[in-house]
Amino acid sequence: MNEIKKEVMHVGEMASGAALTVPVYRIKGRTDAPSVYIQANMHGAEVQGNAVIFQLLELLTNTKINGDITLVPYANPVGCNHKNGEYTLGRFDPITGVNWNRMYHFDESIIKPFVRECIGKTNPVIEANFKKLMIESIEEKLNHNIYGLTTGQRIAYQLQRLAHQADYVLDLHTGPISSKHLYCPEYAQESAQYFDIPHTLLIPNDFDGALDEATFCPWWSLQDAFAELGIEFSISSASINKESFTVELGSQEQIDLDVALEDAKSIMNYLQHKNVITTTGYLPKTMTRYGCYLKNYKAFYSPMGGMVDYLAEFGQPLAAGEPLARILRMDNYGDGDPLHYISLDKKVIPILHFASASVNQGTELYKVFSEYFEF
Amino acid sequence: MNEIKKEVMHVGEMASGAALTVPVYRIKGRTDAPSVYIQANMHGAEVQGNAVIFQLLELLTNTKINGDITLVPYANPVGCNHKNGEYTLGRFDPITGVNWNRMYHFDESIIKPFVRECIGKTNPVIEANFKKLMIESIEEKLNHNIYGLTTGQRIAYQLQRLAHQADYVLDLHTGPISSKHLYCPEYAQESAQYFDIPHTLLIPNDFDGALDEATFCPWWSLQDAFAELGIEFSISSASINKESFTVELGSQEQIDLDVALEDAKSIMNYLQHKNVITTTGYLPKTMTRYGCYLKNYKAFYSPMGGMVDYLAEFGQPLAAGEPLARILRMDNYGDGDPLHYISLDKKVIPILHFASASVNQGTELYKVFSEYFEF
Amino acid sequence: MNEIKKEVMHVGEMASGAALTVPVYRIKGRTDAPSVYIQANMHGAEVQGNAVIFQLLELLTNTKINGDITLVPYANPVGCNHKNGEYTLGRFDPITGVNWNRMYHFDESIIKPFVRECIGKTNPVIEANFKKLMIESIEEKLNHNIYGLTTGQRIAYQLQRLAHQADYVLDLHTGPISSKHLYCPEYAQESAQYFDIPHTLLIPNDFDGALDEATFCPWWSLQDAFAELGIEFSISSASINKESFTVELGSQEQIDLDVALEDAKSIMNYLQHKNVITTTGYLPKTMTRYGCYLKNYKAFYSPMGGMVDYLAEFGQPLAAGEPLARILRMDNYGDGDPLHYISLDKKVIPILHFASASVNQGTELYKVFSEYFEF
Amino acid sequence: MNEIKKEVMHVGEMASGAALTVPVYRIKGRTDAPSVYIQANMHGAEVQGNAVIFQLLELLTNTKINGDITLVPYANPVGCNHKNGEYTLGRFDPITGVNWNRMYHFDESIIKPFVRECIGKTNPVIEANFKKLMIESIEEKLNHNIYGLTTGQRIAYQLQRLAHQADYVLDLHTGPISSKHLYCPEYAQESAQYFDIPHTLLIPNDFDGALDEATFCPWWSLQDAFAELGIEFSISSASINKESFTVELGSQEQIDLDVALEDAKSIMNYLQHKNVITTTGYLPKTMTRYGCYLKNYKAFYSPMGGMVDYLAEFGQPLAAGEPLARILRMDNYGDGDPLHYISLDKKVIPILHFASASVNQGTELYKVFSEYFEF
Repeated sequence: MNEIKKEVMHVGEMASGAALTVPVYRIKGRTDAPSVYIQANMHGAEVQGNAVIFQLLELLTNTKINGDITLVPYANPVGCNHKNGEYTLGRFDPITGVNWNRMYHFDESIIKPFVRECIGKTNPVIEANFKKLMIESIEEKLNHNIYGLTTGQRIAYQLQRLAHQADYVLDLHTGPISSKHLYCPEYAQESAQYFDIPHTLLIPNDFDGALDEATFCPWWSLQDAFAELGIEFSISSASINKESFTVELGSQEQIDLDVALEDAKSIMNYLQHKNVITTTGYLPKTMTRYGCYLKNYKAFYSPMGGMVDYLAEFGQPLAAGEPLARILRMDNYGDGDPLHYISLDKKVIPILHFASASVNQGTELYKVFSEYFEF
Repeated sequence: MNEIKKEVMHVGEMASGAALTVPVYRIKGRTDAPSVYIQANMHGAEVQGNAVIFQLLELLTNTKINGDITLVPYANPVGCNHKNGEYTLGRFDPITGVNWNRMYHFDESIIKPFVRECIGKTNPVIEANFKKLMIESIEEKLNHNIYGLTTGQRIAYQLQRLAHQADYVLDLHTGPISSKHLYCPEYAQESAQYFDIPHTLLIPNDFDGALDEATFCPWWSLQDAFAELGIEFSISSASINKESFTVELGSQEQIDLDVALEDAKSIMNYLQHKNVITTTGYLPKTMTRYGCYLKNYKAFYSPMGGMVDYLAEFGQPLAAGEPLARILRMDNYGDGDPLHYISLDKKVIPILHFASASVNQGTELYKVFSEYFEF
Repeated sequence: MNEIKKEVMHVGEMASGAALTVPVYRIKGRTDAPSVYIQANMHGAEVQGNAVIFQLLELLTNTKINGDITLVPYANPVGCNHKNGEYTLGRFDPITGVNWNRMYHFDESIIKPFVRECIGKTNPVIEANFKKLMIESIEEKLNHNIYGLTTGQRIAYQLQRLAHQADYVLDLHTGPISSKHLYCPEYAQESAQYFDIPHTLLIPNDFDGALDEATFCPWWSLQDAFAELGIEFSISSASINKESFTVELGSQEQIDLDVALEDAKSIMNYLQHKNVITTTGYLPKTMTRYGCYLKNYKAFYSPMGGMVDYLAEFGQPLAAGEPLARILRMDNYGDGDPLHYISLDKKVIPILHFASASVNQGTELYKVFSEYFEF
Repeated sequence: MNEIKKEVMHVGEMASGAALTVPVYRIKGRTDAPSVYIQANMHGAEVQGNAVIFQLLELLTNTKINGDITLVPYANPVGCNHKNGEYTLGRFDPITGVNWNRMYHFDESIIKPFVRECIGKTNPVIEANFKKLMIESIEEKLNHNIYGLTTGQRIAYQLQRLAHQADYVLDLHTGPISSKHLYCPEYAQESAQYFDIPHTLLIPNDFDGALDEATFCPWWSLQDAFAELGIEFSISSASINKESFTVELGSQEQIDLDVALEDAKSIMNYLQHKNVITTTGYLPKTMTRYGCYLKNYKAFYSPMGGMVDYLAEFGQPLAAGEPLARILRMDNYGDGDPLHYISLDKKVIPILHFASASVNQGTELYKVFSEYFEF
C-alpha cells in the first residue's frame, strides 16, 4: 500500500481572519520518473472532480507508482463555499467578477532571454533549468509585491507552483449542464484518446490565464523559440514530455461517486500510458472521438429573453436546421408568438448548455463544436 | 374557439422606473358557474408552471368553458428575472430575504364581526358578502397605507385580489430537485385524487403567508366560526365549494413542454370534476397515492458540511436505515472519514432534495414524508 | 493586569469541510458578582461592534473586574465573510433568506411547569434553577436532533448557551445608514440612560427570535407567571437583575476605532453601574434622550421606484410635512415628474435610512420614531 | 426654451420578456457645430451621473445650443436594477462576471484599409467617412450575428452607436468611496482643466473595452496611421476635435442633487469651451490639479484579511510611511497582533478606497496616484 501524504496549504485569509486552506495529497515516486499534478474544483460549483480525486486515491493506494503524484481537491476555498441561494456562485470572484480560472501567470518575455542562455546546453539541462525558472518566476510573484496580489492570484499562483513541478497537469472542471469533453493543446492530440472522453477541443498556444495554458504555453513557447533558431527542443518526445489538460467531467452542482470511479479509471489509463504508474488494469474505451479547433468552438447567445426547453442531445451531430431549443415567451401569448424554435444553419455537435431555463437576451445558450472531425 | 383576453397588470417599479408587470389571461364564463384562478412562477426559479399555463391555454381554447378562468404566468417579475450567476435567485426578495410566498394577507380578526352580521342570512348571501369583504380588505391594504407596503406585499396583494374572485385557486410551484406533490387543505383531501400527483400534503388551518393559505384559511375560519355557533356553513358542499392548492410540479430551473402538457391535462381533469369546464377527455391516472400531514413533513438538515451524492429515489418508501445520501469529505481523506452515509431510523418517503451537491452543516438536505399513508 | 482567556468555538462546517469558528474572550470574575455577555457582528456587514470589543478589551485589561465578562466578536462566521460585489451580504443566510438574528430559541411552554415546581423555593434558588433550565434547554436543542438544525440555529444556539450564563447581555449591531439607538426591554428603561445613546426603543415581551428577546423574554415571562400566582419574583431588583439590549452603533460596512473607543466607554459606564466592574472613570454624557415604543417605530416604504437623495437629518425631530427625501425619476423627465418630495403628515424622528440610493417601489426607505417622548 | 426630445431605446429582454429600455434625451443643434454625447450609470451602483444629467437638462433648457446634445441616464437597465441585499450589484453581469464597461467594440484592423482609401481626400471628408465607418461597423455587429451577442454587448453597442455620432463623449461614473477624478486621453490633457476635478489620469491609446477608449482609440489610431505615412490628420485641431472622458463623480450608491448641480456646471464649462453651447456663466474653478499616467495609477491589494479603518484622506499627497489604513484582526487578540498599520514606502495621492470595511487578503484596498505631477 502506497503512503499518501496530506498537507494543508494556506492560500489566503477572509475578513474574519479565517484561513483559506487547500488540502494537498502527495504520493512519492522516483525523481527520474514522470510526474503528475491533478486539481479539482477551481470553479466552486464544479465539484465532481473532488469525487474523481477520491476514487483516484482509492485506486492509487494499491497501484505501482513510478513518478510523483500530487492531488488537490477543493482547490479554491472561496469559490467552493460561496452560496447565493441554493447554488454555488463559484465561477468568478464574487467581489470583482474575475473568472477564477483566468488568474494564473505566464510572462512570455522570459522565453527569449532564457533561450539565449541555453545555447549549447543539453535538453535535459534546459528542461531542468526552465522548470526552475518557472517556479522561481511564480515565487517571485508570490513573495515580492509592493502593491500586493489579488485574492485569486494568490490562490492561483500557489496552485501553479505545485503544477510547475509536474510533467503532466490535469485540471478537473465541469460544464454547466454538459457532456464530457477535453481541452487539449494541439500538439498533444495523440494523448486525447487515452481518456474515455468522446469530445476534444484542440487549443493553440495562446495564453488567456487558465491553468492548462499556464502550464503548457511556457513549454510550447520555449519549443517554438528554439525552433526559430533551428534548434530542436521537443516537448512531445520520449525524453521530454509536457502535457496539460482541462478535463470537463460533465455537469456542475453534482456529485456521483459511481461516475467518478469511471472517470478515475480513465485518468488511470492516461497515467499508465504516460508511465506515471505501472498497471495493466486500464484500457481506453472504444468510442467515436470528435475533435474541434478552439476557434470553431462556438458559443450561441440567446436571440431573445425567455424560458428555454433545451432539445438538442449532447455529443451527437445535429443537422442544420434541427432545433437546439424552443423558447417560451408566455408574455406574447395571444398577441404574439409564444413559442420560438432556435436552430443553426450548419451541422454542429452540442457540447453543453446553460444551467437554467431562464435566459436573458444574450445569455450563452449552448456551446457547440462546428467544423468538427473524427479522429 | 374561446376568446382569451390578455391584460397587463402593473405591480411595481424598479429603481430605474422600469414597470414591473404581470400578464393576466382571462377566459370569460357564466357568472353562476364555478371559477378558477391559476398562477405560476411566484418563486423565480420555479418556471415550469408557465409552461403548464401555456399548455392549459392551448387546451382551453377549444374546451367548453363554464366559469371564469384566470391564468397568471410570470407572477413575480422581480424573482423571475433575478440572476446570481447562472441560476435564478427567486425564492426570496434579494434585498430583504423574505420568501415571496410568505407575503399574502389574512387578518383573522375580520371573521367574528362578519359572522355576527350574518346571522339569519342565507348561505349564498353570506358567500357573496364574504367574498366582497375579502376583496375589499385586500384593496384597503393596497390603497390606504400611510407608511407604504413592501415590494413583495404589493405584488402579492394584487395577485390575491384576483385569486379572491375565484372559487378554486391553484398556485403552481416546483421543489428544488423534486418529485411532484400537492399541498392540499385537510378538508379537500377528496379532491387530491383528481390530480395526477402521487403525493399529497394535508395542511391545517394555519395561516403562514402563502397564497393557498391566504385563499382557503379565510373560508375555513368562516366555516369554523359558524360551527362554533352551531350553524352549518360548509365550504365543501355542492353549493359552496372553495379549494386552494399549491401544486409542486417537479424540479426548478427547468422547462419541459411535454411534461407540461401532462400536467395541464391533470389540471383539466380537476377543472372538469369541479365543473369549471365541461369535457370528457380527461381522467385521473391510476396510481398509488400517498398522504402525509404537514406536521409529519420533515426537513432533514445536513449533519455536516460536505459534498452530497444523493442516493434515495423520490416518491418511493425508503426503509429505516437505508441511505438517503452519502457525503464526501475529501478534507478528511487520510486522517479521518472521507465518506459518510446518512440515514434515518424510520421509514420515510423522500419527496425532494437540495438543488446542489455542496452543503453546509445545517443545509436542508431532504424533505420527506414520515408517518405517511395510502389513500 | 487582568488575564484575558481566548477560546475558539467551533460552530459549524462549510461544504469544503472548513470549520466555522468564533473567538471567545473571557475575563474571570467572582462567581457571586454580576456577569455580562457581549457579542458583535451577527449580521455580516455590522462590523463596528468588533472594534468596540477591541476597545473594551483594551480598557478592561486594567480595570477592576467583579463578575465574569465574556466577549464574542465575529459572532457569525458565515455572514461575516459573505461578499456579493464589494459589500457584505450578511443580514440573512444566503441560502435560505432567513435573518441571522431570528434564529435564537425560546419555548414559552417551559415556564408554567417550571413555576409549579418552584412554589416554596427562595428566589436565589429559583434564579439558579431557571438559569440551569435555560442552558439545558438549549443544549438539548443542540445535541438531540433527529432531523438536525439549520446552519443559523446551530450558530445561534451556541452563542445563546454562552449568553444564558450571564446576567446582562449586549448584542452589538448597526443599522444600514443610521444614528445610534438602543433596543431596551420596557422594564429596563431606567438603565438606558447609562449608555451614551440618545434614542431608545422600548420593546415588549414578545419573542421573535432575536438574541435580546431570547435572553430577556424567558426571565420576563417567568416574572409574569409568578405574578399571576401573586408571587413576587422581580428581575429588576437588587438581588436578581437581568437585562438584555441590542445596541445599534451607527452605520454598517464601517470600522472607526476612535468612535469605537467612545462606544466602549459608554458600555464601561453601564457595566460600572451594574457592578460588573468597579471603576470611577466613566460617566454617562448629558444629552436629550428620546424614547419610543416598538409599535410606534415605523418603517416607511418607498411609494415609488427611483433614486433617493436622503434629506432628513438623523436623530432630530422632523416636523410634519418636512421632506424625508426627494426621489429622482429621470425616466419621467420631459413627460412626467422627475423629482418627488416625500414627507409624512406627522412629526417623527428619523433613525436610519436604506443603505443605497437605488430603491424599488416598496423598499424600506426610513425607520422613524413616531409618538416619541423625552425621558 | 430649448426643446428636449425624449426617446426610449430598447436594448434587450429579460427572461420574462420584460423589455430592457434606456431613455435618450436629445437637444437638436446645428449640424455644423460640435456635438456631445453624455451617458450615466453603466455600472449599476454609480447613480450620481443620473442626477448630473438631471441638472444638465435643467441648465441646458435655457442655454444657447450650438451642436447636438444627447444624454442617456440609466444607461444599463440590468445593472441599475440588480440588488443583492441592500446594495446594487452593478459592476458586472451577474451571470458571467464580465465588467459592463469592458464590452464596447473596436476592431483596430479597420484602420489601415481605411487609411489606404483616404489618400488624397480632404480632412473633412476623411472625418465624415470615418465616422460613417465606425457607425456602420457597430451596426454590422448589432445586426449580423449568426451566434449572437452577449447581453452586455447588445447594450454597449447600442450606446456606442449613439456615442459615435458625437465629437465629445462623457461617460459619467463614480468610484466605490472616492474623490472626483477624470480619465483623459493623453492628447487631450489640455481640456482636463475645464472640469472642476482636481485629479486627472492620462491614458494611452490602448483599447480595453471601455466606452471612453472605444470612442477615442479609433480616432487616435487613425491619426497615428496617417502620421506613419507622414500625413497630418490631427484630432486635436480647431477643425477636427475628438475627445472622450470617463468622469468619476465621487462615491457610488449615493444621490446628491446639490453636488450634482456643481458637477453639471463643471460640464457646462467644458461644453462652452468646446463651443457645443454658448454661454458666459461658467468658469473653471481655481484648484491645484494633479496628473498621473495610467501606468502609475496603482491598486493596492490588502496584505491580509481583516476589518479596515480607512485613514488616508483622499486627494492629498500622503508621505511615504504614513498610514493608508489600519486593519483590525480581532481573531489575533491575545495571541497575536490585533491591529496592523498599512503604509507605502513612497509618496502617493489616495484617490479611492474599497466600499466596505471587510476585506479578504487580496481585496483592492486603495487606488493611488504614484509618480504624480501638478499641471
